[in-house]
Amino acid sequence: MEQINNIQVVPCTSSNYMKPFRVHYSQNGTKKSWDFMRTHDSVSVLIFNTSSNCFILVKQFRPAVYMCEWEKSRPAQPEEEEASEAAAEAGEEKNSHLPPASAGVTYELCAGLVDKPELSLEEIARQEVLEECGYDVPVTKLRKITSCRSGVGVTGAKQTMFYVEVSDENCVGEGGGQPEEGELIEVVKVPLQEAMNFAYDENIPKTMGVIFSFMWFNSNMSPKYKISTNV
Amino acid sequence: MEQINNIQVVPCTSSNYMKPFRVHYSQNGTKKSWDFMRTHDSVSVLIFNTSSNCFILVKQFRPAVYMCEWEKSRPAQPEEEEASEAAAEAGEEKNSHLPPASAGVTYELCAGLVDKPELSLEEIARQEVLEECGYDVPVTKLRKITSCRSGVGVTGAKQTMFYVEVSDENCVGEGGGQPEEGELIEVVKVPLQEAMNFAYDENIPKTMGVIFSFMWFNSNMSPKYKISTNV
Repeated sequence: MEQINNIQVVPCTSSNYMKPFRVHYSQNGTKKSWDFMRTHDSVSVLIFNTSSNCFILVKQFRPAVYMCEWEKSRPAQPEEEEASEAAAEAGEEKNSHLPPASAGVTYELCAGLVDKPELSLEEIARQEVLEECGYDVPVTKLRKITSCRSGVGVTGAKQTMFYVEVSDENCVGEGGGQPEEGELIEVVKVPLQEAMNFAYDENIPKTMGVIFSFMWFNSNMSPKYKISTNV
Repeated sequence: MEQINNIQVVPCTSSNYMKPFRVHYSQNGTKKSWDFMRTHDSVSVLIFNTSSNCFILVKQFRPAVYMCEWEKSRPAQPEEEEASEAAAEAGEEKNSHLPPASAGVTYELCAGLVDKPELSLEEIARQEVLEECGYDVPVTKLRKITSCRSGVGVTGAKQTMFYVEVSDENCVGEGGGQPEEGELIEVVKVPLQEAMNFAYDENIPKTMGVIFSFMWFNSNMSPKYKISTNV
């Protein structure tokens, strides 16, 4: 799918995407501090196409995931970590032992950040379904599944998950995200009957949102639709 | 539960916990870059106590979650954000509009980082069950549920989830984590019959791991045990 090379890792002293802060506070009178990042809440959407009985997911190359695999594939031992970090900082990172690009590709629910204060969560979710997956659906068709906290150690943002049914008639474009924002998203269909095998196949890298929402569908949308559950 | 005050937020230029990096790479010949953080993979464990038919969770004050709620509770409008960030940087953050400490308390699966190369994932999971929840169980009792990717935008770490059954006889301590590492963890029991209502009650802040694993139990451990599913 993708060709990745010329990897160079440098320390990041200032980023538009990650802003580390430290909070000092008192907890029951004891002074403490904690490092965290400011981030936006997010929405994600489980999309089910009733024309083809398929779930609609997105698939993309995630540099952060790739770098995790890249780190693991490096021959560095704990005792030489300092040295290789120094090499990294000097921008001399070697490109030996590069994992295949597929190591950084993940399957995810259609999702987006809550960064437009004038829009409701449902409206933001609706926009993401259109931009990323090409389906134009009215806001009223979005049903909230639940919300939870993600990255509780570092960001703690709230993640709200929706469900929406679409049909081929709602399909008005190819999706793919906004190339001008660097999004390179591939729309993927997962047939209903393959969904639970897909969810539990650890060879297919995915977020917990995919696995959870497939299970939620299975528990809450049947008997209207029924996923095979022999896993 | 907790009293939080004297909040002061400052930019974090160097942290032992968050190390931002930037990777430059070529994707299909096009030069790109991405900011990410190096982090460890993690394990989490759904613990079911067969003596009391309860799930064993942990509950803790999460500064990052609290700060999210704190940001939202501030009266700042987008146009004054620059000014208030400047105030934050000068350490002059006001403590008006403080949310209650409970806004930062989350319910989570027993979990830990994979930071000991000499131990297997199961062994690390076993240690966390002992340290955080006080149950001493043999490694062989841990059953892998699945694995997935978390924080795909920023960290991309692999999260592996286990299931373990314990009994009151395995309880050898109070748990609570390692106070010397700043852990202040409260062990919480959720009765089987309340589990699905607990999972979908959005007034109880929790991670997706809790919701997902309760559903997994419901689908995979029944009819041996059966959660009420009227949600």
